[in-house]
Amino acid sequence: MPKATVHRKAHFNAAHRLYRKDWSDEKNFEFYNKCSYKNYHGHNYELIVSLTGEINPETGYVFDLGKLKNIIKEEVEEILDHKNLNLDIPYFKNTIPSAENICVFIYTILREHIDRSLELKITLYETPRNFVTYSGK
Amino acid sequence: MPKATVHRKAHFNAAHRLYRKDWSDEKNFEFYNKCSYKNYHGHNYELIVSLTGEINPETGYVFDLGKLKNIIKEEVEEILDHKNLNLDIPYFKNTIPSAENICVFIYTILREHIDRSLELKITLYETPRNFVTYSGK
Amino acid sequence: MPKATVHRKAHFNAAHRLYRKDWSDEKNFEFYNKCSYKNYHGHNYELIVSLTGEINPETGYVFDLGKLKNIIKEEVEEILDHKNLNLDIPYFKNTIPSAENICVFIYTILREHIDRSLELKITLYETPRNFVTYSGK
Amino acid sequence: MPKATVHRKAHFNAAHRLYRKDWSDEKNFEFYNKCSYKNYHGHNYELIVSLTGEINPETGYVFDLGKLKNIIKEEVEEILDHKNLNLDIPYFKNTIPSAENICVFIYTILREHIDRSLELKITLYETPRNFVTYSGK
Amino acid sequence: MPKATVHRKAHFNAAHRLYRKDWSDEKNFEFYNKCSYKNYHGHNYELIVSLTGEINPETGYVFDLGKLKNIIKEEVEEILDHKNLNLDIPYFKNTIPSAENICVFIYTILREHIDRSLELKITLYETPRNFVTYSGK
Amino acid sequence: MPKATVHRKAHFNAAHRLYRKDWSDEKNFEFYNKCSYKNYHGHNYELIVSLTGEINPETGYVFDLGKLKNIIKEEVEEILDHKNLNLDIPYFKNTIPSAENICVFIYTILREHIDRSLELKITLYETPRNFVTYSGK
Repeated sequence: MPKATVHRKAHFNAAHRLYRKDWSDEKNFEFYNKCSYKNYHGHNYELIVSLTGEINPETGYVFDLGKLKNIIKEEVEEILDHKNLNLDIPYFKNTIPSAENICVFIYTILREHIDRSLELKITLYETPRNFVTYSGK
Repeated sequence: MPKATVHRKAHFNAAHRLYRKDWSDEKNFEFYNKCSYKNYHGHNYELIVSLTGEINPETGYVFDLGKLKNIIKEEVEEILDHKNLNLDIPYFKNTIPSAENICVFIYTILREHIDRSLELKITLYETPRNFVTYSGK
Repeated sequence: MPKATVHRKAHFNAAHRLYRKDWSDEKNFEFYNKCSYKNYHGHNYELIVSLTGEINPETGYVFDLGKLKNIIKEEVEEILDHKNLNLDIPYFKNTIPSAENICVFIYTILREHIDRSLELKITLYETPRNFVTYSGK
Repeated sequence: MPKATVHRKAHFNAAHRLYRKDWSDEKNFEFYNKCSYKNYHGHNYELIVSLTGEINPETGYVFDLGKLKNIIKEEVEEILDHKNLNLDIPYFKNTIPSAENICVFIYTILREHIDRSLELKITLYETPRNFVTYSGK
Repeated sequence: MPKATVHRKAHFNAAHRLYRKDWSDEKNFEFYNKCSYKNYHGHNYELIVSLTGEINPETGYVFDLGKLKNIIKEEVEEILDHKNLNLDIPYFKNTIPSAENICVFIYTILREHIDRSLELKITLYETPRNFVTYSGK
Repeated sequence: MPKATVHRKAHFNAAHRLYRKDWSDEKNFEFYNKCSYKNYHGHNYELIVSLTGEINPETGYVFDLGKLKNIIKEEVEEILDHKNLNLDIPYFKNTIPSAENICVFIYTILREHIDRSLELKITLYETPRNFVTYSGK
């Protein structure tokens, strides 16, 4: 069977701040610059979820993108949209909510809901100029 | 002299929250929905500043867009980028930081730096799907 | 009170065909070219709805864009999305579903749901390179 | 010789409908949802064709993108643009015109026109939020 | 008859340089900065041509966008695409090829080919962040 | 440690011309078409630099994208922006400034500034429809 990758875009808006509690404000600013400002800032995160697998000859689908849209909505958007990542999401209490780590977080959630026969890749745009990809390796 | 409009795009990332102190949490949620969540959320704001005036026949410019870029950087981006609009910007202590009001705020700042012979218009994208225009009327 | 314009983007996918029943196939092809092909073709229509009015000083809103999103969803997307404009929409039984006429159709629907104190403008992208604006004049 | 990948974007507009003749209307709607509506709907398909191979040291090209543009125009756009995929394209008489299968169809056509020393990959956007990649595996 | 505006996007790539022969190199650099570099630089210019007029009730068109595409191709793209504006276009021998002046140039050409009953507006993106609009006033 | 890829977009505007000195004007035009015009044309080049490596558990970063932005600015933009590639950049005196070769050039520069533990990939958009990727193979 031919193999293809299907991609679905989604988005959420969130606030965050990059800093380590065990570093001084100066060291945080030196390393994370404006991203360490104490009152948080935020982004329109654009998310692309990519699934690779065989095209089902009966349906013409690798995976139903309408179903994927709903999984992303329930498992990712409902949890992250209009939230403060540092304060509202337990995972980021002790993990820095960098775009890299948000990718790993989303991958881990979605991996539970997508059959293992499909490869999963996450792309996250923090801004139109900064983005990250992660595929569980 | 022919008249034209020149436009310059800029951007900043900020956190905010929409709510009225004199309303209950329930009323705020009923009206502002997820935008009222207490720990803030954020956006990649895209800004377009538009100036209308005569084309200077000597220089071919309505207004030097490099100069406009610097004015926006110093007067708008330096103040709003990576900030929490509610907590860090005095203007929004008692004014709701809706996209409409942020437009008025930016217009008011820039109007001081742009000669009155030029019309000024502000366009602000809060998300790729929600945006606002304001021209001082 | 300062006046601003708020904009909301939406989208729908539809099939259509441009032709006049009282013209021959040749005349239709000569005038409408490939758009007259008999088995229909289709587009991802991108829609921008723009409302101009005073910023409410109590709420900071011209119009709640969440509410506008829902009005567009119920009154426009539910009716046009995944439809064949010629066959499924009675309005286009005898009206050519050109981008211009689809704009007028959407304007007429939404005008009923938006208070007359607000100006209404419709922008419709038929393709990323072809689009139309209409404001009821 | 260094190897690079060159990409060319193209587009076409088409109508289609997803359904299996051997399924009831209810089962088709349950599985394909609005995509199964009987009168067709349509999309602005955005296509990216990617070729990987050695950079020719004499010309600086992996493959002349002007030539690729013409091949895509003649072999893909001329055949699919402004067409109804189900009714006008024999390949989709018995194959569901899902984005996955359209990718395979385009790949198969182009593979005949591109030298085997070059790897070929097809990316097809059905909407700005749904897209598929296929590379012949 | 209802009035609408139809828009068509086009593009061309060109080289240019901003400088006045009667100014010293220093004064040119001070005013035009990097745009005055002597060996030229270039842009992917994105052009939007907008026509406002009544929707023809017989055809559903303000103006045939396929015809407009061809007019832009023949009268603008054929003349400006892959050219050096300063050296190849007589109009810019003594007129600075700023985005403002290129807009006026394109407007003047197209005004000859578009019936006076239609209003004409030109939008020209020099970069995704700098653009100009001109409507003959 | 999980591995991710971080991407940073940048841009520069430049003029160029594709031709071989040892070919006649006719042969150059036949092969490079309009790209061979003698007075140069130009582009808004969009550049994406991608780095793949382990996420540092202490900082949450694969590589600081603010630092990457500065490296690109100093090592690529300062050298190429507003320049004529053929005349101003010694590398292109005897190498054709095709998008492929510009990718190799940028890769070679940046490889010196990025630790070998990180994979490096360059994507260069010459126009929104033509682009190239290169990863040093």
